[in-house]
Amino acid sequence: MDHKGRQDRLRNVLGSNRIDALLVTHLPNIRYLCGFTGSAGALLVREAGSTFFTDGRYTAQAWSQVQGAKVVIVRRSPSVAAGEWLAAKAKTRITVGIESEHLTVAERSRLHAVLEKEIKLRAAPPLVERFRMIKDREEIERIRAAVLLGASLFDIALKTIRPGVKETEVAAEMEYAARSRGAEGMSFETIIASGPRSALPHGRASDAAIPARGFVVGDFGVILSGYCSDMTRTVYVGKITPKARRMYEAVREAQQAGLDAVKPGVSVGRVDREARKSLQRRKLGNHFTHSTGHGVGLEIHEAPRIAKGQSENLCPGMVITIEPGAYVPGFGGVRIEDMVVVTESGCEVLTPTSKELITI
Amino acid sequence: MDHKGRQDRLRNVLGSNRIDALLVTHLPNIRYLCGFTGSAGALLVREAGSTFFTDGRYTAQAWSQVQGAKVVIVRRSPSVAAGEWLAAKAKTRITVGIESEHLTVAERSRLHAVLEKEIKLRAAPPLVERFRMIKDREEIERIRAAVLLGASLFDIALKTIRPGVKETEVAAEMEYAARSRGAEGMSFETIIASGPRSALPHGRASDAAIPARGFVVGDFGVILSGYCSDMTRTVYVGKITPKARRMYEAVREAQQAGLDAVKPGVSVGRVDREARKSLQRRKLGNHFTHSTGHGVGLEIHEAPRIAKGQSENLCPGMVITIEPGAYVPGFGGVRIEDMVVVTESGCEVLTPTSKELITI
Repeated sequence: MDHKGRQDRLRNVLGSNRIDALLVTHLPNIRYLCGFTGSAGALLVREAGSTFFTDGRYTAQAWSQVQGAKVVIVRRSPSVAAGEWLAAKAKTRITVGIESEHLTVAERSRLHAVLEKEIKLRAAPPLVERFRMIKDREEIERIRAAVLLGASLFDIALKTIRPGVKETEVAAEMEYAARSRGAEGMSFETIIASGPRSALPHGRASDAAIPARGFVVGDFGVILSGYCSDMTRTVYVGKITPKARRMYEAVREAQQAGLDAVKPGVSVGRVDREARKSLQRRKLGNHFTHSTGHGVGLEIHEAPRIAKGQSENLCPGMVITIEPGAYVPGFGGVRIEDMVVVTESGCEVLTPTSKELITI
Repeated sequence: MDHKGRQDRLRNVLGSNRIDALLVTHLPNIRYLCGFTGSAGALLVREAGSTFFTDGRYTAQAWSQVQGAKVVIVRRSPSVAAGEWLAAKAKTRITVGIESEHLTVAERSRLHAVLEKEIKLRAAPPLVERFRMIKDREEIERIRAAVLLGASLFDIALKTIRPGVKETEVAAEMEYAARSRGAEGMSFETIIASGPRSALPHGRASDAAIPARGFVVGDFGVILSGYCSDMTRTVYVGKITPKARRMYEAVREAQQAGLDAVKPGVSVGRVDREARKSLQRRKLGNHFTHSTGHGVGLEIHEAPRIAKGQSENLCPGMVITIEPGAYVPGFGGVRIEDMVVVTESGCEVLTPTSKELITI
């Protein structure tokens, strides 16, 4: 990964954001910029160079992983230590950007307390998150591999989903296969929501037994080489009713409408609208209670949000999900989700799995 | 769980903390106070009653889970919506406490922006975390069950750890068993650190194959009914050297010294000191690079920290880990960790697993 290049690009925008340095404290941003994968650290990116602060647990790891930054091992909170280090160094008045969407109010106070009056803190916009929206070639290759590994778990689900089997048993088989096939872990708590529970958009696998009849929503993903996958498929157990079939086809159409809208220059709000309009035509608009998708990368949810009123325009290299759903309390729910990468002319669907209705 | 009683006890301390209400935004605190387990919400606890805010994805879940609070479904960030709701309601000047260790700088700004000038925000101390330190009978039962399930995974590890087997394969078998036995998930990324990697205190399972000779540190835990378990055992693969055996026994002694120090009224700093002194006597003090332990409950790391200089006194009902370790770069590392509950007269070790040296 081109960690040094990423830090250089960040340096290039410090001035236009009226900051002399950015104190990066959000761990995925730290990983993106310098390669460190541990759970405690702060990266100070200045014109003059970058310095990475972590504690004694991570000495060996920091030395082997961190690129493009000097490593300093500290005995206290890395962000506060970065502030002290800077206070000892700063000779002129400077402004340090903080990641206000991630730094807590208390951390900001502690940081403020160790700064000399020459150093001012400013809430910076999400600079690193904006760079991270556009994936480079190496990132897309990693995401592609994660998506394929993730998709291979759907076959396990199909073999395991049977009436009477607990949702957690299905999740256990899928997660075991994920690990065995090299995943670092799941990218979020596996959702296996069966029967009436399929109407819960976030129905993580429970002790409930899969009923003899009804939808089963499976929403799952893996982390591979740091990058996340995310996909959803919905199957029907038992003989499907005409109403359930119509609902499935409506969501499938809406998902296709979302995919069809994905092109460079189109706003993410427009993509959401196309999926939503499709469900409204089928009288299911009120049952689509979440947004259409989100960016995926080092984090399972990252910019951009594919949601109503969002104005971000799609660009080549963005990797997003398209995942409309419809949820009818007491009856059941359907969600279908692919990951796509925006290309020069449209998009490439990364998820290789069929969306034909499967009954079990 | 006595959610209503917990909210009442919180209400009783609002006045002495010079706040009229507490806006609870940290999800484990929300779960503790009202039972909601979803991933988006804000709980406003006032003298006059409690109100819980969440979004449309969680309508059904909030209605079925939330106890002791009115549920309001909102279309924007729950914390900001809580602010708007309060602004519409407040007739006199009031002060609202925020959880400054959890609320981000940006969330605070957005919240501040919707408040009328009658409402003042104040950084509250960690009030809910302090209540959560002392577990009630029902919580201790849940923790006990989680610890037993977690400990059962060590047998899987012993069966799987062999020279040439990948660390991730060991983790996969353990995690599969955890899921199959009813765990909601692992309480943190499973650490299986073999050979020289055992000297990394946070060596989560990697693609590395277990070498023919050396320590393997296994640090793992499960989540069961919302509560976490945490334990570490270290085994030796191959014929153990005298130096490695001395190191194991030194850590085991230090762990026992830590356990022996755990009593009501003793400071957590003292517990840390006893474990540390024990390793210093064996000339391993410099190789013990982290703190001795931490509280465990709804979160894998919670108050109190069992660390140098911490002054909190142990009380009956606290559940903590005792986990000293020694890490010699290039040679290997040993860590031994139990979970204990502080009793009226000392402590009860919850982890049932032998600490005799096991060679494989």
